[in-house]
Amino acid sequence: MYSPQFKNMRIAYGFDEVALVPGEVTVNPEQADISFKIDSLTFDLPILAAAMDAVVDVPFAVRYGKLGGLAVLNLEGVQARYDNPEEMLVALSRAKDPEITSLLQKIYSKPIDPRLIGERIKAIKDTGARCAVSVTPANAKNFAPLAAEAGCDIFLVQSTVTTARHVSKSYRGLVFSELCQSVSIPVVVGNCVSYGAALEIMRNGVAAILVGVGPGAACTTREVLGVGVPQVTATMDCAAAREAFLKESGRYVSIITDGGIRNSGDMCKALASGADAVMLGSIFAQSEGAPGRGYNWGMATPHAALPRGTRIRVGTRGTLQQLLFGPSSVTDGSQNLVGALRTCMGVCGVVTIGDMHKVEMVIAPSIKTEGKLFQMAQQRG
Amino acid sequence: MYSPQFKNMRIAYGFDEVALVPGEVTVNPEQADISFKIDSLTFDLPILAAAMDAVVDVPFAVRYGKLGGLAVLNLEGVQARYDNPEEMLVALSRAKDPEITSLLQKIYSKPIDPRLIGERIKAIKDTGARCAVSVTPANAKNFAPLAAEAGCDIFLVQSTVTTARHVSKSYRGLVFSELCQSVSIPVVVGNCVSYGAALEIMRNGVAAILVGVGPGAACTTREVLGVGVPQVTATMDCAAAREAFLKESGRYVSIITDGGIRNSGDMCKALASGADAVMLGSIFAQSEGAPGRGYNWGMATPHAALPRGTRIRVGTRGTLQQLLFGPSSVTDGSQNLVGALRTCMGVCGVVTIGDMHKVEMVIAPSIKTEGKLFQMAQQRG
Amino acid sequence: MYSPQFKNMRIAYGFDEVALVPGEVTVNPEQADISFKIDSLTFDLPILAAAMDAVVDVPFAVRYGKLGGLAVLNLEGVQARYDNPEEMLVALSRAKDPEITSLLQKIYSKPIDPRLIGERIKAIKDTGARCAVSVTPANAKNFAPLAAEAGCDIFLVQSTVTTARHVSKSYRGLVFSELCQSVSIPVVVGNCVSYGAALEIMRNGVAAILVGVGPGAACTTREVLGVGVPQVTATMDCAAAREAFLKESGRYVSIITDGGIRNSGDMCKALASGADAVMLGSIFAQSEGAPGRGYNWGMATPHAALPRGTRIRVGTRGTLQQLLFGPSSVTDGSQNLVGALRTCMGVCGVVTIGDMHKVEMVIAPSIKTEGKLFQMAQQRG
Amino acid sequence: MYSPQFKNMRIAYGFDEVALVPGEVTVNPEQADISFKIDSLTFDLPILAAAMDAVVDVPFAVRYGKLGGLAVLNLEGVQARYDNPEEMLVALSRAKDPEITSLLQKIYSKPIDPRLIGERIKAIKDTGARCAVSVTPANAKNFAPLAAEAGCDIFLVQSTVTTARHVSKSYRGLVFSELCQSVSIPVVVGNCVSYGAALEIMRNGVAAILVGVGPGAACTTREVLGVGVPQVTATMDCAAAREAFLKESGRYVSIITDGGIRNSGDMCKALASGADAVMLGSIFAQSEGAPGRGYNWGMATPHAALPRGTRIRVGTRGTLQQLLFGPSSVTDGSQNLVGALRTCMGVCGVVTIGDMHKVEMVIAPSIKTEGKLFQMAQQRG
Repeated sequence: MYSPQFKNMRIAYGFDEVALVPGEVTVNPEQADISFKIDSLTFDLPILAAAMDAVVDVPFAVRYGKLGGLAVLNLEGVQARYDNPEEMLVALSRAKDPEITSLLQKIYSKPIDPRLIGERIKAIKDTGARCAVSVTPANAKNFAPLAAEAGCDIFLVQSTVTTARHVSKSYRGLVFSELCQSVSIPVVVGNCVSYGAALEIMRNGVAAILVGVGPGAACTTREVLGVGVPQVTATMDCAAAREAFLKESGRYVSIITDGGIRNSGDMCKALASGADAVMLGSIFAQSEGAPGRGYNWGMATPHAALPRGTRIRVGTRGTLQQLLFGPSSVTDGSQNLVGALRTCMGVCGVVTIGDMHKVEMVIAPSIKTEGKLFQMAQQRG
Repeated sequence: MYSPQFKNMRIAYGFDEVALVPGEVTVNPEQADISFKIDSLTFDLPILAAAMDAVVDVPFAVRYGKLGGLAVLNLEGVQARYDNPEEMLVALSRAKDPEITSLLQKIYSKPIDPRLIGERIKAIKDTGARCAVSVTPANAKNFAPLAAEAGCDIFLVQSTVTTARHVSKSYRGLVFSELCQSVSIPVVVGNCVSYGAALEIMRNGVAAILVGVGPGAACTTREVLGVGVPQVTATMDCAAAREAFLKESGRYVSIITDGGIRNSGDMCKALASGADAVMLGSIFAQSEGAPGRGYNWGMATPHAALPRGTRIRVGTRGTLQQLLFGPSSVTDGSQNLVGALRTCMGVCGVVTIGDMHKVEMVIAPSIKTEGKLFQMAQQRG
Repeated sequence: MYSPQFKNMRIAYGFDEVALVPGEVTVNPEQADISFKIDSLTFDLPILAAAMDAVVDVPFAVRYGKLGGLAVLNLEGVQARYDNPEEMLVALSRAKDPEITSLLQKIYSKPIDPRLIGERIKAIKDTGARCAVSVTPANAKNFAPLAAEAGCDIFLVQSTVTTARHVSKSYRGLVFSELCQSVSIPVVVGNCVSYGAALEIMRNGVAAILVGVGPGAACTTREVLGVGVPQVTATMDCAAAREAFLKESGRYVSIITDGGIRNSGDMCKALASGADAVMLGSIFAQSEGAPGRGYNWGMATPHAALPRGTRIRVGTRGTLQQLLFGPSSVTDGSQNLVGALRTCMGVCGVVTIGDMHKVEMVIAPSIKTEGKLFQMAQQRG
Repeated sequence: MYSPQFKNMRIAYGFDEVALVPGEVTVNPEQADISFKIDSLTFDLPILAAAMDAVVDVPFAVRYGKLGGLAVLNLEGVQARYDNPEEMLVALSRAKDPEITSLLQKIYSKPIDPRLIGERIKAIKDTGARCAVSVTPANAKNFAPLAAEAGCDIFLVQSTVTTARHVSKSYRGLVFSELCQSVSIPVVVGNCVSYGAALEIMRNGVAAILVGVGPGAACTTREVLGVGVPQVTATMDCAAAREAFLKESGRYVSIITDGGIRNSGDMCKALASGADAVMLGSIFAQSEGAPGRGYNWGMATPHAALPRGTRIRVGTRGTLQQLLFGPSSVTDGSQNLVGALRTCMGVCGVVTIGDMHKVEMVIAPSIKTEGKLFQMAQQRG
């Protein structure tokens, strides 16, 4: 006796399970236009630097801004807690492994100083660079006016899973439509992974959404909560919401894939899945001069891959310039991200990120798994 | 020449192959109602402690009952064979590996003493805690009245595979409808995995069924017998039987997923697959004060993962309190099970376990496999 | 522009990818009738011992026959080349690794002595045991009369891939219909894997067919030739041919799954896939007193898993009695094959091998892969 | 709320995921006709040697030509840059690992000497062997007349991804129809992987196309660009284009699968996927007397598996004769390629490569993965 179906399940795909198909036309990579927009602001590079203390501080934001990118400063990290955040960053990079959990807990227990919010933003803006900042929903209403007043260009609200409707008997949740109307700058909200949730957030007036819940191999959200949608499918579903919302409203809300991207190939796949840009953390933490000094760590729940109390060694692999524009001495897709994207667009025969959304993708599972087993066997044999 | 189809095969899914999709609404985790019912008895926690000697003894059952859970005492283990079971448990935890097989065989060959059945049950009930006990079908008819008389709240009948109809020329099998009518307390029966078998058992008047045959990685049922259904599909099919039986009878029979759950994420997936509760063994054996003292072992066929004669070291990872409610110092889903469940319900936007049954699940295969290969390569490189 | 489909491909399944579903009825394992028939000959056990020198010699055939099974003697191995084959078997088990290839080549280059064919068969028959022998197609016509005359019960013709029609300009291939008519004893032919090939061989009058081309992990047929069909699908397709042939002719031709079976679980799956029996090699080579003395080796092309020149250490794991009937001290399905089969039939609720063909199977991929990765990581961590 | 589908994705298959099904007829392997044609030129072997400096030099091309194959000389390697290329090849094989990148960069920065193009081609042609040469699109127009004049038989134009239309504002791309009309010898173009791209290239008058973008486990195209189609699907799609083009034009354009082939089994699968021939690199680099002297290295982008600057040790495994015709002392499909192909055609019951295109293939995923895990565990256990 066969069972009636209790629940319907779709198959969801991650970066490892898909590949792009070259086009019927090829294009000179130099002709690729890789710019991307949040609201009316245009950026040369479709790559955001994630709001993590080990990735973005003021000097990084300035340097990255000059190269055409957008770095997001976390307003709940050391930058807005300490007059001299440098000191804390150095301490975190020098701490021995057994001390790190208590040190992190101590450092991040200092209250946020609202005065520092303005100071950091101004320090970035004074150089002429664009400035983006990130907070959790609980702090959004209070910090948004301070940030806007200080000249911030873009305001991000991030938590592991964010929806337009939060149900609570004990407090009134953040209402994004109110936030978007009350601040004069574009609001970006994340993270979400589904069509319905994305569409509803868009209807609240946000300028962009961040896509990704439990995507990466290192991310424990899936082990702890059972929750997570692989990024190719998550991006596609949110991109479908963007198209639906564009049709209903005439407004284009950008989709930013955040999390699980380990190399330039994954970045290209995210864009082909419908993203307008990607957000990277660990890859930037590996650049020379990154505030993490060869480490990355979790500050709080928004960065589920690194729960508070964990610090991982990521190393330093080259300058920010090399990371973005090469030349690359390695062939694993960890350097020359922009060059790789341009080449990808060239072989796929597309000129804009919007065209990338139409590139054919195939499900091409697991060919690397066996290759890796071979390599492992050989290295150890 | 293509072959006509000899046999139709459905795809069955396990915990590793699915993931939950966050909802369009989020809910304050504190509002989640995670209680669960067997018949008219309500429990604060939807987690049963498995009927294994290394998991449940009288003190554990009392402690766990006070925390809101239900522990199941095995009436065919040391508790009902020895006046002083403690002595045996200590011996088992101290035995050296080469001695363990013969020691287990010796310890479990002592006959069950019916007098001890009542004694153990009363010891639990005297503290005010609820009491559940488990036997194999062969002993059900004899022990059920003793248990009920001693004040037992719930009576479990468990074997590797249990059906409502057992065919034998040499003996008359257990008739569940007779058992359910003859004892005054709810009867829970397992294990089963299919719609048809579950439905038929329900029609015999049981209060709940246990789901799981050969589910886990460590379980040898699949290697030895070729038999086994991955738990997501098994739970879904039995939940479909529950819905069908509810429609035909108006009675709600709870579904308890038993086996293969390694972390809080798996537990959340089981509930989203249609389970009303889960039953855990090894995770509880790892709690401080568990009778196994850092070990777990197989007592008999009902626990196919641990055939009689095998003992595995599971270690001690924290207090029962920590295991259930945190705080968690690790991020692998082995601690703070209740906190994880509440957070999962929050991000999925549901308030009751019943709502959990409607949460969207996707098939998200194997993304961790490659991640693990990477980790292994790095740890060893 | 999407491609028109160049070729249609079905999915084929192997043992690792499927699992049996317990039935709605359970049956006392003692009631299972596991006998199997080739033509009018009935055997107590549905397990053949493979025609390999390391598996079957005269004493093994006699011992296995007494336990109810059928052992197949290879007429192209040492048994029919040497008056004293024992001497060669001892030499092969004592040779050092660097010597083994040349020793194998030397030993198997001695011509077959037709006189010994009769001698070996008589030695088996004189004990009252049934006798089966195997040859390659090239020797079938010459050796079949000798074997039949000596009292042989069953005559096998085996090569890597056998079809009813062999095209050659330089020689006239074996015509199975002529062979079957010319010899008075049942002819069993293999190996084949597809519906069409199996059906055509059946129409030539054979009594049973052997199923399996390139099935096992160790088998190099797939790496060398690209050829191979996983055994679950291969068995199902040949079983479909059996059903079709039964309908068209009224004759039942037994299906014997040969190759790729590593444990009792695989054996149960083969039977549930439609096989009437299985043929095992390495598992028998591991029994005490097996002629291989803890080794197994390839003699010629029919045993593609072990190309001539390769010898592998399989070890000795227990008596033939233990292997078949237990008791089993291990839980990996390598012992107590018959007990496992009976238990499997019990939980699946079936009484005959024919009923096994109707047991539900699910596609349950890869749950063990991750489990194994874990185990490996832990053992090495 | 389910998402509307953003993008449709087909499943693409690689060699590891398919297997050939034996036929209903078997054929004497000696009767197999394995010849293959490019335009009006017939070759005894359907195997090209890849245009890599470590694989093909003049002596190799001559030796391989005499055995019936076609070797392709790279006109952008050392052969057309140095009067005495031997010296450079020796230097590259003797360099220590830390020196190799700069040595490669230095060696390949010397300008190509057009005079040497004619010299090398004549050196091959003077022996009576056929000669094929390869260039990148940028050099095609200039070098084609030189090659044709020197007596070259076949002219290859290769880059990672080649299409019939290349869009650039800064230069006029290569127009294949012009190239094909202007040179008197057959033009072969690659690499491509899709139906549309292949069809369009065919319409430009080419004689054959090379199939493969990012196919192999070692190939970094997929990690760096996210681009790549597994070879079975890529070959099938291009073969579908060949059939469509044959119907529309009456001309047969050969399909050559290039890349990702690790053993004779993969080669057989490529032919069964619709290829008329295959192109091999590393396997030939392992033959005695190969110019790489036990190494292989990347010269430029056309060989994405080996980016410029990387050299890998491939070892020397036997003579070219052994590699092609055996005898094989190993069973991993790395030797006796022709014998394996003939045997494959025999068991599949086909006589020509064209018949191979009709052989049934099944999707037979990953059975070897677990086998390999076992092996690894055992080797290390």
